[in-house]
Amino acid sequence: MWTHFDEEGRPQMVDVSGKAPNLREAWAEGWVRVTVPILEALQGHTLKKGDPFPVAELAGIQGAKQTWSLIPLCHPLRLDQVEVRCELVPHRCSVRILSHSVATEATGVEMEALMAVSVAALTLYDMCKGLDKGMVLESIRLLRKTGGKSGTWSCDG
Amino acid sequence: MWTHFDEEGRPQMVDVSGKAPNLREAWAEGWVRVTVPILEALQGHTLKKGDPFPVAELAGIQGAKQTWSLIPLCHPLRLDQVEVRCELVPHRCSVRILSHSVATEATGVEMEALMAVSVAALTLYDMCKGLDKGMVLESIRLLRKTGGKSGTWSCDG
Amino acid sequence: MWTHFDEEGRPQMVDVSGKAPNLREAWAEGWVRVTVPILEALQGHTLKKGDPFPVAELAGIQGAKQTWSLIPLCHPLRLDQVEVRCELVPHRCSVRILSHSVATEATGVEMEALMAVSVAALTLYDMCKGLDKGMVLESIRLLRKTGGKSGTWSCDG
Amino acid sequence: MWTHFDEEGRPQMVDVSGKAPNLREAWAEGWVRVTVPILEALQGHTLKKGDPFPVAELAGIQGAKQTWSLIPLCHPLRLDQVEVRCELVPHRCSVRILSHSVATEATGVEMEALMAVSVAALTLYDMCKGLDKGMVLESIRLLRKTGGKSGTWSCDG
Amino acid sequence: MWTHFDEEGRPQMVDVSGKAPNLREAWAEGWVRVTVPILEALQGHTLKKGDPFPVAELAGIQGAKQTWSLIPLCHPLRLDQVEVRCELVPHRCSVRILSHSVATEATGVEMEALMAVSVAALTLYDMCKGLDKGMVLESIRLLRKTGGKSGTWSCDG
Amino acid sequence: MWTHFDEEGRPQMVDVSGKAPNLREAWAEGWVRVTVPILEALQGHTLKKGDPFPVAELAGIQGAKQTWSLIPLCHPLRLDQVEVRCELVPHRCSVRILSHSVATEATGVEMEALMAVSVAALTLYDMCKGLDKGMVLESIRLLRKTGGKSGTWSCDG
Repeated sequence: MWTHFDEEGRPQMVDVSGKAPNLREAWAEGWVRVTVPILEALQGHTLKKGDPFPVAELAGIQGAKQTWSLIPLCHPLRLDQVEVRCELVPHRCSVRILSHSVATEATGVEMEALMAVSVAALTLYDMCKGLDKGMVLESIRLLRKTGGKSGTWSCDG
Repeated sequence: MWTHFDEEGRPQMVDVSGKAPNLREAWAEGWVRVTVPILEALQGHTLKKGDPFPVAELAGIQGAKQTWSLIPLCHPLRLDQVEVRCELVPHRCSVRILSHSVATEATGVEMEALMAVSVAALTLYDMCKGLDKGMVLESIRLLRKTGGKSGTWSCDG
Repeated sequence: MWTHFDEEGRPQMVDVSGKAPNLREAWAEGWVRVTVPILEALQGHTLKKGDPFPVAELAGIQGAKQTWSLIPLCHPLRLDQVEVRCELVPHRCSVRILSHSVATEATGVEMEALMAVSVAALTLYDMCKGLDKGMVLESIRLLRKTGGKSGTWSCDG
Repeated sequence: MWTHFDEEGRPQMVDVSGKAPNLREAWAEGWVRVTVPILEALQGHTLKKGDPFPVAELAGIQGAKQTWSLIPLCHPLRLDQVEVRCELVPHRCSVRILSHSVATEATGVEMEALMAVSVAALTLYDMCKGLDKGMVLESIRLLRKTGGKSGTWSCDG
Repeated sequence: MWTHFDEEGRPQMVDVSGKAPNLREAWAEGWVRVTVPILEALQGHTLKKGDPFPVAELAGIQGAKQTWSLIPLCHPLRLDQVEVRCELVPHRCSVRILSHSVATEATGVEMEALMAVSVAALTLYDMCKGLDKGMVLESIRLLRKTGGKSGTWSCDG
Repeated sequence: MWTHFDEEGRPQMVDVSGKAPNLREAWAEGWVRVTVPILEALQGHTLKKGDPFPVAELAGIQGAKQTWSLIPLCHPLRLDQVEVRCELVPHRCSVRILSHSVATEATGVEMEALMAVSVAALTLYDMCKGLDKGMVLESIRLLRKTGGKSGTWSCDG
């Protein structure tokens, strides 16, 4: 169902005025595949001094709050919480980013969770690109969402 | 080189005050892997009525202009041009997104190109998620950049 | 009644803390009077390739979401829906723009509807100004609003 | 010439990377036609206490600075100056709004001048709508622009 | 209690999803200590022509509405009202700024009240800095807040 | 000299179109006076786990980039660098915040330096307010600025 186009094909926001607010949650993940020199720098860095992960996590939280202004047909909403977490996965030579967003609204928070992951990943890219520009953002996707008329959805695995 | 941390590990913007502006360009790409029903809907839709691609392309352009506010240590800059293009690649069951950003500045436009692709991809996700939430953003990466002291850089292939 | 000034003449937001949220709707319209060459280009363009109308409609939707940040004494609110529609009215050599905004809030959405029309009109101007700068925005006004203590209001005709 | 669409009809920003910055100026005007009670209130108000004109003028200045984020294909630029002026024109039962914008850039400031007038007009509407919602924004147009390859342009009269 | 860090020390937004909205109010104050020439200019100015106080008050109101985007771990919320008031206190050679913010939300509005005072103070600084740059912002603090689980809080005096 | 009002007392941006860009720098400082329990928590916290200082420093950098949108008559500009540093000063039971901003522009960066300090201070307040709301922002002021027609200025001490 093309919820974002009317019968004549014009873009539109979905009308949520008849829907009661309820608790909505969404979890998303993404990966930043790095080169070995960046991996080693990240391993050393988090132990010694300076740490790009809190910078990326904060940027992800702030990015989630801007979802409504960046995605044209998204609704403005009041987020109850956003969490973003970066973790190094050395055997995949990658950083894994996880996000969780919560709101009590008439519309879901999937886009907020995905935006949090994306902005955190881009922030990591920005901070590490002086070492090597060959990083790749991989597998940014929704893991799970709850609440709303359509209820719970989980990715396949 | 950790350009975004000072000697004590504090996050910082790179000082570009001594650098002369010159022409900077960057190209980035990314993929949205969709399900077969979405692929078919996109194929039919672009021919008949309504088209999510221009919506995503516009959102990508506008997102690129917000890069400095979303990525904490990015510099504000004046973009000379941003282009975003979505194209259906049926045999990969995916949409490919390409971006190109240009500025005459003392700092590069790689992040702007990557932001354009990411916001366009998330906008596509938003518009198609009523059909299926199992889409995945894949391989968002820099293809090439020119200008600046470090000159031209291209991805491996 | 000067709702936006206190007894000493200082600007203020209207206090809506005692008011219960209810369904608010507003409809607005405006016209962009174009020159004949632009009219002809728009007629040909919408049929052939490229179409400034969806760009303007999207910009109007996004502008409506920014009303609270642009109009100093407006309240931030959660829009349930915004629609914007451009249509060519050849015998008036004009584009007519209509908007509809909806929220379940303690404050009305008239300004959001008017902002949507204005930003859509300015976006059309921007896209057509390479052809001729002599376009004029005409008759931007509220058509109707419902909800709230003051109830329904309609323009004279 | 459709400067904002490429050969395939996709929306695009105009590439200004080859253009040298030079002094650009633009002047715009618009009218807010008010009802007699609002006219009388504005006449009394500006003399006694509280004055909606500075509020609208400031909002217009701030709106001009947001033009690049509101109009999808506009370039970000550094405004050297923006002026907005509201004046009561009693025999037309209207407020006239004039703006002037200046930048030393590779792209013009027409949209900034028009945005300043539009946001100032909407702000006036917002502050007076408690008295009567039947106001109409009329004849928002460019008066004159100078600078750039196309040089000086003036409206007909 | 470190409400803004999880057990591992990562920054986080406080989860307010289980909290019922109720009426929240906050009052804040701050001082801008000026030099004698600025004091005299302000005294003369407010009587004669032009007045920096409404400009600062408006900027404070608009700044309060941006609190959620400026303070990384603040929640977006719908403000019911914001008031800002500047007053000259000649015997302290200072401008006193008072703010009051109101919302019906699951989270408090202390930061909004403090942001309103801070942005108003900085705006005053900006407008008077042509006369003397030696102004100092002093004693920006919360005066009182009501509502929420923790109830009423008042500063010592 | 009231640079922000014209002869009739209307607020205006200063016209910088005739001024050549040159290197501008500004340094500002401010203090957050905390209670003893917060001081002890900050001392323990920075050693063990979680640290509010990088969060505040990042928020200050991002706030500086928004100066033009928050201060009504400020010019948009391209910052070459912003640095913000928080340090605990136990014998004053305070956090000292220092900022440094740099741009190559026709207008100064004093407001950007002061905004960086203010937003960093408010962010600290936000993160510590769960422990005690009685913190006070003290002595936010410009330390020094260089560049521009008026040259170097330093505070008295």
